[in-house]
Amino acid sequence: MKSHTEYLTFTVPARMDFVNITPQVEAAVRKSGVREGLCLVNAMHITASVFINDNETGLHADYKKWLEQLAPFDPSPQRYAHNRTGEDNADAHMKRQVMGREVVVAITNGKLDFGPWEQIFYGEFDGRRPKRVLVKIIGE
Amino acid sequence: MKSHTEYLTFTVPARMDFVNITPQVEAAVRKSGVREGLCLVNAMHITASVFINDNETGLHADYKKWLEQLAPFDPSPQRYAHNRTGEDNADAHMKRQVMGREVVVAITNGKLDFGPWEQIFYGEFDGRRPKRVLVKIIGE
Amino acid sequence: MKSHTEYLTFTVPARMDFVNITPQVEAAVRKSGVREGLCLVNAMHITASVFINDNETGLHADYKKWLEQLAPFDPSPQRYAHNRTGEDNADAHMKRQVMGREVVVAITNGKLDFGPWEQIFYGEFDGRRPKRVLVKIIGE
Repeated sequence: MKSHTEYLTFTVPARMDFVNITPQVEAAVRKSGVREGLCLVNAMHITASVFINDNETGLHADYKKWLEQLAPFDPSPQRYAHNRTGEDNADAHMKRQVMGREVVVAITNGKLDFGPWEQIFYGEFDGRRPKRVLVKIIGE
Repeated sequence: MKSHTEYLTFTVPARMDFVNITPQVEAAVRKSGVREGLCLVNAMHITASVFINDNETGLHADYKKWLEQLAPFDPSPQRYAHNRTGEDNADAHMKRQVMGREVVVAITNGKLDFGPWEQIFYGEFDGRRPKRVLVKIIGE
Repeated sequence: MKSHTEYLTFTVPARMDFVNITPQVEAAVRKSGVREGLCLVNAMHITASVFINDNETGLHADYKKWLEQLAPFDPSPQRYAHNRTGEDNADAHMKRQVMGREVVVAITNGKLDFGPWEQIFYGEFDGRRPKRVLVKIIGE
């Protein structure tokens, strides 16, 4: 069994935004030399997501609006008890649960085994500082 | 290490519906010959889900109603910017995030290591055309 | 390839609560002898979650309030068709979908490869009875 580990760092200028990280994950798969296996990609921070969806800017705008409705940003401790700790990012912890922490992608014939529109995104919900994503590949 | 890859195709007649795909995944596990390992099952389309829950028609009706409240179908570009592209399925991209893209199931003693009520479902949110699900098994 | 399987049982006194199960998962990783691999942790019941987030009581209170807004507890069959079956836990099946069934965590150098604040939680949405969590580790 082969394994390969890589850490990617992203500093997203906005509080909330999505970054297409498919090229970096594809590069990690090539480096791993794995032909058949699994590729885990996860946010290492708990106010960020890794998810697979469409690379379409209109959809990304829709996601932001929708997530803001489901879990509005509000730095006050009245709405969110978490913000009593001096944090202002309770909403980001909720947005991350809706969008998910991680994806697991099959590797077949040395490549990410994707459907026609699948792309991997880093989802940032409390940005403006460096945060890490883990890529772990196992297989043969 | 053994690996096994299978592609399942589903054409769901309704826009939104759930299909129990546990038998097909169990068959793939048998074919793989894997006794101890992991089984990834993921939607290959970004307006569909694979999830594990109860095989109960009342609950499925509840899920549909609930998802429709969280992310209503609306083909107009007023509510969803994604629909400016000529698509009408922005809501489906959101429903899929709530229900998830994939499940990873343990294989123990040659079988899916399930709790008492766990069943695997394909969740379709923009149906009426053929869409694929990937089953990837690795182990020994 | 090595593999290791463990079943944890939790009886949560409240209907909804979160239990930090990181120490039990770390112990399973040590027992497995795996240095490089993947660790799957999943709820075996369909009204419970396993998720990774912050070990902060204010945030946990926020999650409970938020999930109750997204999918209110209501034992009546008027709101939830599932409750016509004699169950009263349809809401728990929805809360579990928002928080997720499972996490997959990388094992690097014999340890869970975590970011600074990542902790694994068992999320119970229909407690007061024993329910199981599966830990499956594969690697080398």
